[in-house]
Amino acid sequence: MNKAEVTGMILAKKKQTGITWASMAEAIGMSEVFTTSACLGMNSMPRDKADKLATHLGLPQEAGPVLAEFPTKMFEQSIPTDPCIYRLYEIVGVYGQTLKELIQEKGGDGIMSAIDFEMYVEKIPDPKGDRIEIKMSGKFLPYKNW
Amino acid sequence: MNKAEVTGMILAKKKQTGITWASMAEAIGMSEVFTTSACLGMNSMPRDKADKLATHLGLPQEAGPVLAEFPTKMFEQSIPTDPCIYRLYEIVGVYGQTLKELIQEKGGDGIMSAIDFEMYVEKIPDPKGDRIEIKMSGKFLPYKNW
Amino acid sequence: MNKAEVTGMILAKKKQTGITWASMAEAIGMSEVFTTSACLGMNSMPRDKADKLATHLGLPQEAGPVLAEFPTKMFEQSIPTDPCIYRLYEIVGVYGQTLKELIQEKGGDGIMSAIDFEMYVEKIPDPKGDRIEIKMSGKFLPYKNW
Amino acid sequence: MNKAEVTGMILAKKKQTGITWASMAEAIGMSEVFTTSACLGMNSMPRDKADKLATHLGLPQEAGPVLAEFPTKMFEQSIPTDPCIYRLYEIVGVYGQTLKELIQEKGGDGIMSAIDFEMYVEKIPDPKGDRIEIKMSGKFLPYKNW
Amino acid sequence: MNKAEVTGMILAKKKQTGITWASMAEAIGMSEVFTTSACLGMNSMPRDKADKLATHLGLPQEAGPVLAEFPTKMFEQSIPTDPCIYRLYEIVGVYGQTLKELIQEKGGDGIMSAIDFEMYVEKIPDPKGDRIEIKMSGKFLPYKNW
Amino acid sequence: MNKAEVTGMILAKKKQTGITWASMAEAIGMSEVFTTSACLGMNSMPRDKADKLATHLGLPQEAGPVLAEFPTKMFEQSIPTDPCIYRLYEIVGVYGQTLKELIQEKGGDGIMSAIDFEMYVEKIPDPKGDRIEIKMSGKFLPYKNW
Amino acid sequence: MNKAEVTGMILAKKKQTGITWASMAEAIGMSEVFTTSACLGMNSMPRDKADKLATHLGLPQEAGPVLAEFPTKMFEQSIPTDPCIYRLYEIVGVYGQTLKELIQEKGGDGIMSAIDFEMYVEKIPDPKGDRIEIKMSGKFLPYKNW
Amino acid sequence: MNKAEVTGMILAKKKQTGITWASMAEAIGMSEVFTTSACLGMNSMPRDKADKLATHLGLPQEAGPVLAEFPTKMFEQSIPTDPCIYRLYEIVGVYGQTLKELIQEKGGDGIMSAIDFEMYVEKIPDPKGDRIEIKMSGKFLPYKNW
Amino acid sequence: MNKAEVTGMILAKKKQTGITWASMAEAIGMSEVFTTSACLGMNSMPRDKADKLATHLGLPQEAGPVLAEFPTKMFEQSIPTDPCIYRLYEIVGVYGQTLKELIQEKGGDGIMSAIDFEMYVEKIPDPKGDRIEIKMSGKFLPYKNW
Amino acid sequence: MNKAEVTGMILAKKKQTGITWASMAEAIGMSEVFTTSACLGMNSMPRDKADKLATHLGLPQEAGPVLAEFPTKMFEQSIPTDPCIYRLYEIVGVYGQTLKELIQEKGGDGIMSAIDFEMYVEKIPDPKGDRIEIKMSGKFLPYKNW
Repeated sequence: MNKAEVTGMILAKKKQTGITWASMAEAIGMSEVFTTSACLGMNSMPRDKADKLATHLGLPQEAGPVLAEFPTKMFEQSIPTDPCIYRLYEIVGVYGQTLKELIQEKGGDGIMSAIDFEMYVEKIPDPKGDRIEIKMSGKFLPYKNW
Repeated sequence: MNKAEVTGMILAKKKQTGITWASMAEAIGMSEVFTTSACLGMNSMPRDKADKLATHLGLPQEAGPVLAEFPTKMFEQSIPTDPCIYRLYEIVGVYGQTLKELIQEKGGDGIMSAIDFEMYVEKIPDPKGDRIEIKMSGKFLPYKNW
Repeated sequence: MNKAEVTGMILAKKKQTGITWASMAEAIGMSEVFTTSACLGMNSMPRDKADKLATHLGLPQEAGPVLAEFPTKMFEQSIPTDPCIYRLYEIVGVYGQTLKELIQEKGGDGIMSAIDFEMYVEKIPDPKGDRIEIKMSGKFLPYKNW
Repeated sequence: MNKAEVTGMILAKKKQTGITWASMAEAIGMSEVFTTSACLGMNSMPRDKADKLATHLGLPQEAGPVLAEFPTKMFEQSIPTDPCIYRLYEIVGVYGQTLKELIQEKGGDGIMSAIDFEMYVEKIPDPKGDRIEIKMSGKFLPYKNW
Repeated sequence: MNKAEVTGMILAKKKQTGITWASMAEAIGMSEVFTTSACLGMNSMPRDKADKLATHLGLPQEAGPVLAEFPTKMFEQSIPTDPCIYRLYEIVGVYGQTLKELIQEKGGDGIMSAIDFEMYVEKIPDPKGDRIEIKMSGKFLPYKNW
Repeated sequence: MNKAEVTGMILAKKKQTGITWASMAEAIGMSEVFTTSACLGMNSMPRDKADKLATHLGLPQEAGPVLAEFPTKMFEQSIPTDPCIYRLYEIVGVYGQTLKELIQEKGGDGIMSAIDFEMYVEKIPDPKGDRIEIKMSGKFLPYKNW
Repeated sequence: MNKAEVTGMILAKKKQTGITWASMAEAIGMSEVFTTSACLGMNSMPRDKADKLATHLGLPQEAGPVLAEFPTKMFEQSIPTDPCIYRLYEIVGVYGQTLKELIQEKGGDGIMSAIDFEMYVEKIPDPKGDRIEIKMSGKFLPYKNW
Repeated sequence: MNKAEVTGMILAKKKQTGITWASMAEAIGMSEVFTTSACLGMNSMPRDKADKLATHLGLPQEAGPVLAEFPTKMFEQSIPTDPCIYRLYEIVGVYGQTLKELIQEKGGDGIMSAIDFEMYVEKIPDPKGDRIEIKMSGKFLPYKNW
Repeated sequence: MNKAEVTGMILAKKKQTGITWASMAEAIGMSEVFTTSACLGMNSMPRDKADKLATHLGLPQEAGPVLAEFPTKMFEQSIPTDPCIYRLYEIVGVYGQTLKELIQEKGGDGIMSAIDFEMYVEKIPDPKGDRIEIKMSGKFLPYKNW
Repeated sequence: MNKAEVTGMILAKKKQTGITWASMAEAIGMSEVFTTSACLGMNSMPRDKADKLATHLGLPQEAGPVLAEFPTKMFEQSIPTDPCIYRLYEIVGVYGQTLKELIQEKGGDGIMSAIDFEMYVEKIPDPKGDRIEIKMSGKFLPYKNW
């Protein structure tokens, strides 16, 4: 059993039962974004969370260790084509240099970590049309001199 | 005078005077991210803001209309190489499918707009190491059926 | 059962029975372009339309929910090779900057949405050779300042 | 004097005088799309129209013949990055196979010409938000058997 | 049964029986180039020719309709590697601009159609070494002004 | 003085005087295609022809030797974007495998040379619309066994 | 049975029996390089040599005709990654222009054929470390003028 | 003065005086291939050879040290387009795996060095058409185990 | 049985038994890096080590010879996407020119071999956060003059 | 004055005076690798080190602040062509997955930082041929769960 197979099982369960990512996340006490990314094979869950999720969804017992394996993160489209994902890519293209300017103005020469990192996404009701809010928080890492 | 030349003037002023993006933004009553992106030639400022900024920085008068021109947004590296910008690209690669799942679970088949969109970036002090926080808010656009 | 399998079933039915996209669209009261794109796996139908189409074509009952799933839109050829599709790509290449100039002259800095969007295609008889007419209508989205 | 220089002169005039593409098109009795594309160096105007436009804008006399030269059409970004142009590219990606199905259902094995072709773009007021309408008309060319 | 499977059957027959493309073309009264391209899945034969060929080669009856289906033309190598095909690509690279100059000198701004198009290939005996001759004929399409 | 400069001079002369590629070719007793390709810097003329052409066009004397230099053939767009040149590329994509089948059926395992090669292009009047005819002749080169 | 399958059989035999490319080549009286390339599916053997090799290796009788088929030469990595093959690619990159200068200084405007071509490879003992020697011989083809 | 400028001077001298690469190589007692590659900026000459060549060609004195500088080897076309250079690339594509098989059959797991490497090129008269011979010799480097 | 299958068996054993790369390396008396790379199919083990490892892990006997086969090293992502591997790629991008300057300052015009090469990786405890240390040692190869 | 210009000045000084990277590094009390990378524009020096270096080399005073500016790190060749740099890229390709396995076996799911990172390079005399040693040390960053 590998990560792709476990992802397939989870998506099939989701379709059958209508269970949401939100409720899966709640069931194991982790965030929606992290839970979803681990289920899609892009992160490794701590073993206890992984086992809990497997039990919660009624997956075979071997699914737990697989969810806890360290993935090799492959994203095959260097420019994503799905419109929902492309818009995020476009934001990096349009605002990437801007974010660099502001991060480095605030913190000096360095970056925002994508490893010591967390992210949240919400839908916010709005009379002029609902909005999606994404919040990212990553550790500031200054370049080392030596 | 074109956008690239005005960007050059602004960066030169910044170097000479040490003025920050934050203070430029404050001076014209716009956000840091939008102000910076417009100065880098990736957005168009409303004419009155543009003129105010030109005056504030002591740029030639023609700079105002140029900052108000509609740009053609070109990002030449389809995969950015600067580490600070690459980390953002990596986040889209690693979490793109996750964000799509969650946006569409919350809102139905649709996307977060990158046009009716705003973004904020802050450095948050933290005893375990300061953090960078990025907040995005984009209108949810459902796919139309017809 | 996934979207690719349902597409395969629809294309097989079409071949056997000679049913057209036009008549499928009419049967469910949606446009030809949207109906075809959903059958090819590039859009999600409302559940009732999806069930109606499944019944109309004599597909297995599970096909309905599948047609209603939200797709991940993948287009694998960044430059299409089929001559019929390439001509559309060429039009974007040759007239893209022109359309941008005219859209922004008419509406200010902004774009035509590809999400809040509809499209129609017709063949128009013409003594000098029949013509194909394509009409697109997308919401104008102005860039937000903040 | 070459096409790029004439384009530069026209854009400079436009900026100085505020003249629109629409009024240039009207002045020479051609459509907005064709006029704009020729001014941007992507089409050749008939000589008389070219001279009329040069006179109308007060360009040097040599500009006329240059606007009438046959261009080599180069589009440097195989995937456009400007959001306004990318949306058109995305439409080809998402709906390309759909349009092929419908064109060939209506006309047999063949294509819509991008040469014997015309296009119009309008902004249509709409209480739910203005819309952009694009109409294309291209000759249907059936594949020849031999 | 799809086009790739029919191509497979034809190539297998060819290997078994030694029948040539030339004789297949003659049997159905079409040209060698068109017949071969349709058998390789790159063109659609008129239904009667397709049925005739299926009978002639002793293929199953369903092969006829498949040969008559409209193909989606995919060429996976944007730069072909087979030396025999690369030489043709090289000719387009080396002489492309030359052909454009001469076509447009002779016909005005326009192109040679690749749709209303035919092609022939022959081997011509020559004491200094046999030669291959390729003849192409495509309708001249002038760019439309509007 | 280099090949690009000489090409520039010839194109300028052509524009001023209206001289055609056909008449240049005739003046030096070479074919239109070869003459044009050498003027565009993609072939080397024999020295006497080169000098004759330089004299005929009233170019500086140094242009002769430059036209006789051996070029490094660079074609910068691996997929050409100009529609007139793209159609030739498309023909290689659609018919490349077909031509290989027929060349090798007629001559055995081998290729058509693009070096020991000549090509002609004509416009042929036709009541249903004029046609462009291209004729290529290349030496057949069988693969050597050793 | 196709070329890939025959290659698989030959490699399996090689592994089982320890037979070398050198001894296969000797057994059929052809060179090592040509024999190996034909076994790997990159060249076609004359039918009698192919049959001899099939018999020599104890392959099924159908393998002979397959080795004699004309291959379509595909090399999937445009920049090879295996270090042994990359070094050859690097030599073309570093010395390509040099070889062109010297070939054309010696022979005039032309090329070394890769079709009427042969190649040998040897290991030469050397006290300072053994060396690999590769010898290529290709017909000089002068560009034709016409 | 940089390597590109020195290359330009040498090529200009060559054009003026007709001096060959062969005679330059002889004058400094090095091989034709190495001498040419160093003059084209792809290798560094020992300082004494560099000075000798500068003197021999009547270049300014600073040219010597520049020819002796260590170059950064850049080859901008990952697939070369010039037919003379492409044929070499094609040979790597067609015969790369073959050479790897033979080098490793003869020497074990390892490669032919492209650094401890030398190459020679000759034109060999032949009644059936002159031939180009290229000889390469590179040190065999076995992979280290540790 | 091929290298990919043996890699699969080793990874499965590792998962079942929890055996580490470190202990496998120790069991056969080779380094961790080399042992791991050979198990992943990127190097060939000496036959005795390969047999020893197969026995140690309880793999089928044929696994030994397979681990000793010479691999064709393929790395499919020219820019790796996994963050752990990308950081190494980034180091080459950011520091590549720096390393070249320093290697050549210390050794003259030449390179560090990736063939006569060894590498070690360790985790070093550190109160400010543990560190990873990588040590590479490759033979210096000076460019040959000839 | 920008970073590229300061790099140019430093390289020119180096050529004139023969000063080494090692001695520059020693003069300012930083490592060779960091000093060289900052001089090549790939890192920012602390202001006092930057001023010291400018003085040490006799550069204009403005060079100090420029060396202290935060660079945008661009590496234009995604696959480097210079053999000395390519070998490092090849090491990432061949050993990337191996290093990931070992780093994560030792530290859990995480990466080696390329930001909190240092590197050293030495030439080590060796009777069998001198060796280059590269040592990297980067902080281990575990993936955060949230």
